[in-house]
Amino acid sequence: MNRQATRDEVDNVIRHVTERGFQPIELPGTDRLAIGVLGTNPSQIRDAVVVLPGVMDAVPVSKPYKQVGREWHPEPTVVEVGGVSIGGNAAFAVAAGPCAIESRDQLLTAARGVKAAGASLLRGGAYKPRTSPYSFRGLGAAGLGLLAEARDETGLPVVTEVLTPADVEQVAAVADMLQVGTRNAQNFALLEAVGTAGRPVLLKRGLSNTIEEWLLSAEYIVSHGNSDVVLCERGIRTFETATRNTLDLSAVPLIHSLSHLPIIVDPSHATGHRHLVPSMALAAVAAGADGLLVEVHPDPDQALSDGPQSLNLAEFSALMQEVRRLGAAMNRPVEPAYDGAMRSRMGAG
Amino acid sequence: MNRQATRDEVDNVIRHVTERGFQPIELPGTDRLAIGVLGTNPSQIRDAVVVLPGVMDAVPVSKPYKQVGREWHPEPTVVEVGGVSIGGNAAFAVAAGPCAIESRDQLLTAARGVKAAGASLLRGGAYKPRTSPYSFRGLGAAGLGLLAEARDETGLPVVTEVLTPADVEQVAAVADMLQVGTRNAQNFALLEAVGTAGRPVLLKRGLSNTIEEWLLSAEYIVSHGNSDVVLCERGIRTFETATRNTLDLSAVPLIHSLSHLPIIVDPSHATGHRHLVPSMALAAVAAGADGLLVEVHPDPDQALSDGPQSLNLAEFSALMQEVRRLGAAMNRPVEPAYDGAMRSRMGAG
Amino acid sequence: MNRQATRDEVDNVIRHVTERGFQPIELPGTDRLAIGVLGTNPSQIRDAVVVLPGVMDAVPVSKPYKQVGREWHPEPTVVEVGGVSIGGNAAFAVAAGPCAIESRDQLLTAARGVKAAGASLLRGGAYKPRTSPYSFRGLGAAGLGLLAEARDETGLPVVTEVLTPADVEQVAAVADMLQVGTRNAQNFALLEAVGTAGRPVLLKRGLSNTIEEWLLSAEYIVSHGNSDVVLCERGIRTFETATRNTLDLSAVPLIHSLSHLPIIVDPSHATGHRHLVPSMALAAVAAGADGLLVEVHPDPDQALSDGPQSLNLAEFSALMQEVRRLGAAMNRPVEPAYDGAMRSRMGAG
Amino acid sequence: MNRQATRDEVDNVIRHVTERGFQPIELPGTDRLAIGVLGTNPSQIRDAVVVLPGVMDAVPVSKPYKQVGREWHPEPTVVEVGGVSIGGNAAFAVAAGPCAIESRDQLLTAARGVKAAGASLLRGGAYKPRTSPYSFRGLGAAGLGLLAEARDETGLPVVTEVLTPADVEQVAAVADMLQVGTRNAQNFALLEAVGTAGRPVLLKRGLSNTIEEWLLSAEYIVSHGNSDVVLCERGIRTFETATRNTLDLSAVPLIHSLSHLPIIVDPSHATGHRHLVPSMALAAVAAGADGLLVEVHPDPDQALSDGPQSLNLAEFSALMQEVRRLGAAMNRPVEPAYDGAMRSRMGAG
Repeated sequence: MNRQATRDEVDNVIRHVTERGFQPIELPGTDRLAIGVLGTNPSQIRDAVVVLPGVMDAVPVSKPYKQVGREWHPEPTVVEVGGVSIGGNAAFAVAAGPCAIESRDQLLTAARGVKAAGASLLRGGAYKPRTSPYSFRGLGAAGLGLLAEARDETGLPVVTEVLTPADVEQVAAVADMLQVGTRNAQNFALLEAVGTAGRPVLLKRGLSNTIEEWLLSAEYIVSHGNSDVVLCERGIRTFETATRNTLDLSAVPLIHSLSHLPIIVDPSHATGHRHLVPSMALAAVAAGADGLLVEVHPDPDQALSDGPQSLNLAEFSALMQEVRRLGAAMNRPVEPAYDGAMRSRMGAG
Repeated sequence: MNRQATRDEVDNVIRHVTERGFQPIELPGTDRLAIGVLGTNPSQIRDAVVVLPGVMDAVPVSKPYKQVGREWHPEPTVVEVGGVSIGGNAAFAVAAGPCAIESRDQLLTAARGVKAAGASLLRGGAYKPRTSPYSFRGLGAAGLGLLAEARDETGLPVVTEVLTPADVEQVAAVADMLQVGTRNAQNFALLEAVGTAGRPVLLKRGLSNTIEEWLLSAEYIVSHGNSDVVLCERGIRTFETATRNTLDLSAVPLIHSLSHLPIIVDPSHATGHRHLVPSMALAAVAAGADGLLVEVHPDPDQALSDGPQSLNLAEFSALMQEVRRLGAAMNRPVEPAYDGAMRSRMGAG
Repeated sequence: MNRQATRDEVDNVIRHVTERGFQPIELPGTDRLAIGVLGTNPSQIRDAVVVLPGVMDAVPVSKPYKQVGREWHPEPTVVEVGGVSIGGNAAFAVAAGPCAIESRDQLLTAARGVKAAGASLLRGGAYKPRTSPYSFRGLGAAGLGLLAEARDETGLPVVTEVLTPADVEQVAAVADMLQVGTRNAQNFALLEAVGTAGRPVLLKRGLSNTIEEWLLSAEYIVSHGNSDVVLCERGIRTFETATRNTLDLSAVPLIHSLSHLPIIVDPSHATGHRHLVPSMALAAVAAGADGLLVEVHPDPDQALSDGPQSLNLAEFSALMQEVRRLGAAMNRPVEPAYDGAMRSRMGAG
Repeated sequence: MNRQATRDEVDNVIRHVTERGFQPIELPGTDRLAIGVLGTNPSQIRDAVVVLPGVMDAVPVSKPYKQVGREWHPEPTVVEVGGVSIGGNAAFAVAAGPCAIESRDQLLTAARGVKAAGASLLRGGAYKPRTSPYSFRGLGAAGLGLLAEARDETGLPVVTEVLTPADVEQVAAVADMLQVGTRNAQNFALLEAVGTAGRPVLLKRGLSNTIEEWLLSAEYIVSHGNSDVVLCERGIRTFETATRNTLDLSAVPLIHSLSHLPIIVDPSHATGHRHLVPSMALAAVAAGADGLLVEVHPDPDQALSDGPQSLNLAEFSALMQEVRRLGAAMNRPVEPAYDGAMRSRMGAG
């Protein structure tokens, strides 16, 4: 407020703030009165009050997100997914598997392979969002059944995408972790639904989401009661067409400085090209990511979806060895430790 | 196929295409055999077959969208919304009203004002998508009731946004036109739901959607049986921060050349600044748009949402006069014709 | 400064400001001292002083550009180019001609044609910037000679691009207006060179320049003594690939609100497609632009550069008729008035 | 060509190709004739010939860049800069120093410090490109003298920016490596000038350059006789404002697959924030970069330019230890090896 602001002017501001559903707090100072506003979208309230009589200025003093911010929650959150920890000082976590579940054989082969190579979670899409209505949309409920079977056999917790609020209950009945995809990153009804689903959530960054918008989407989930959110950087849309998207690895240290939530990296969707995936996976380790999400297919050239960006099992196994070596150099172990015996057993399965 | 391709190689390609759910057609030529594929996502099938033995190349010969394309439907579609025609040779259509419905008084004042100024449709949000979970989210069902009341009084058909499939039935019971917002432009479950809702749909371009992706989203709606789709250009996300988004007016002639669907322009969200709205509205008329979507608020400085980009009633009335003058010069009349008597009657209401 | 700031702390800030080459001014208030800084790049000085003892905050109170800003120069600048006025209340000015000068016959045919159709300036490239070192680079000095000849015959002032400081004198000896291209928009040595060349300058917006950066580039020219600068919006680089660039027409009203300099629009480079040029040209008129820059070629399919985006003479003539009709509706005449007699004479030439 | 193309039609195409300055080669096949075109900008020639009679299609079969491409030069290029090798199997090279040279003391302190920490080259700007004409533009020739002095004392080769062709000779007389900055990445006159300067060139990626455009800029330099080009990824311009630019680390493996030229990474300009620099520097090592360019200032808070993104000497020294550890894990040694004795000696200097 201005130094000369009258009591009426102060009350007028307080009334405006309250009417908009925010909580005003008077903060008297030696020479002027400040009015703090809690729970706000700063730009909205600023627009509204800055024009009122007696107001000197309206300054956003805190981030628009609260519960996901580091400011009020400095300790890193560790999210538990079916026994696997992600974030903080937990081991580096790798989720791998096919973009789309195509068949029992395809999924089980992939699951055994990625486990043998050292993945800690299995990814696989039962419901697929597709830009064209004529593309393969996934096996749906049948795919969920195959995921459960793959988990039973390998012990790997499973992460799979949910596309719409109506499917959340069904998917949550099987999945250890619910994935919200890039095109749904601001589907607020879906964010609210997974916020009450009782399962950890993997929240991909929207194709053109700023860091702030992304954290606000996470805030939707957390503010509905679900604090088990893992963020996933998967590339943003830019002018460059040589890659499918532009992987914004600086999001890793940025998110770590702004938020207590874990962040993992998806080099497959980010680059769109198999031969770029290993370099970007290693760069993610070095940047301090808490894990990876990698597309792996037993036979990428036959994949119904995203074949050109999928690694085969041998390529993934080679990548995991490099990830482990780099993780060791970064003092970030990758669990489970490589187990040659287990691997040959799996390879024979 | 290569000129030397064997029958086995041809059959192998046909089997691959069929397995992926597409329909192959043999097109024998004098020196080689071509295989046409219907109903396809070109990039997917290309990736799959180009590696097969005997294949020379895989060339996309048609657009990935079919039903919304001009190629197979050269005549422009005219969409009827509660008696108002949009597209083709119909009059230039202006939908105007507040971003969010805040109260009975606010909505009715806006409705009377925009009608008096010459708008043909009333827009107003009952359910608002908000980046932050702490922002005002709209009046919901109560807002829908107010929309119905405003329509009853003014006779203006109403367009309002629907956020999630579960709300479609409720919103469609009131709205003359369902709006799918920019953040839901690739919410495929919602696109399918409005595809069977029996109401015309206003499909906004996604924040970072290419023209092709946008038309594919329209294809989702049309392929579910609803051919009454109007596209709305509302700015795309770019590096420029002086405007809220960058209005891509070249989308107007581009869409007209690629698709038979009507396209209107939203200069309010595109620019984010009230003083830029009139110029961009007029530019949209000159570019050949079929209409406008304009945010108008009786008292923009008190608006709960998007105040800085809303016109007040006097500004909107002045804009409409210029739109009419320009429309006349472009041989594109703006209905209904200006009616001074009606206007002063309304102004007194 | 803080309310408790000591005289030493104030002097320390003043010393820092002075050392950086800026001019500090003490602005004593009732409860604290403010220090104004003239001639500054706000971000630089802010970074430097905000960390000093006794400083409360550093707030940019004015735009980083001065001489090109409206704030200190509210009247629009009218730039005279060889007898043609651009900006303010001057007639709408159209510069047209081929991207590259290819031959005497090509240039003279184009010059006669665009004059007959109503263009007021002739454009044509003698020195061409090309992304690849293997592309046609223009006729150079020979092209300048042809430009002079075309001017002599048609009376149209000529605008042509200059690529590097060493060429400025030679080009300025012929050209009525020097064009600085999009890839040189932040070639500061070139901006300085044209700032002392004694010729009006057409400054294209850089491919990824913000409005502020663009005005700062204009400030380079003006601050070197040349106030005859016309800005040219020609599309910015975005994720959309359906057009060559994305035409940002909102730049027209934005520039008019921020600066007194004229702004014209180049719909040819912006869209990259001939069939989109007329719509965007008309949209530019409606948006309030001061003129157009249009690529016209007697035989676009034979053009050595930018053929797909060039109009032929008949298409340009048809466009000019629409521009005139729209200009009349906008109260913005397009000079010279259409002269049927002259035109048929030219057509027979 | 079509199978039925006549000899006249073939000759017509050949004439068109030749007229455009390209070299056509007839490639007769069993059923049709193909015409190969050497030294071309594919898009230009395609536009021109695809409309000619008898032409079936025009297909780009090779990259628009030749000499910088891997295709015809599979071995990685190793660039020698004052005795330091960059690229191929050479040690990981770190160039470090202040953005702008401000004083003898500042530069020498920085030079001693970065050498002690393990840098192999000294960077420092004598001529600074600045967005605003009112910002500090560097010490110019005096700065070059200080660079020479710093090299004499430390033995570190120096890299410094050159802004315009007229300065090339003067800068090349001192610098071991000439830097072409991001705003000059398509200043073709400058690229040609450094192409004949007899010094290795550090070519930064333009703010909105695609990978292909960047390689074409390198092709300008190489095609003028200078094959000692090192590319530098420094972030591209995107919608994200939380960082100064968006570091596109996928450019590292992409460039390595497309070109034989070395590529280094500048995490300082890319992020714009000191606290993000170390993570991105390490990510660059992991991505397979050939080196780093890091802004280091003895007292960043007093820097005249880019202070917020500069590391101080202690931060840089800590970073170098991590770079060495990671380089060892990647089998990419960082020379010179850490020398504690030398370092403490320097610290006492």
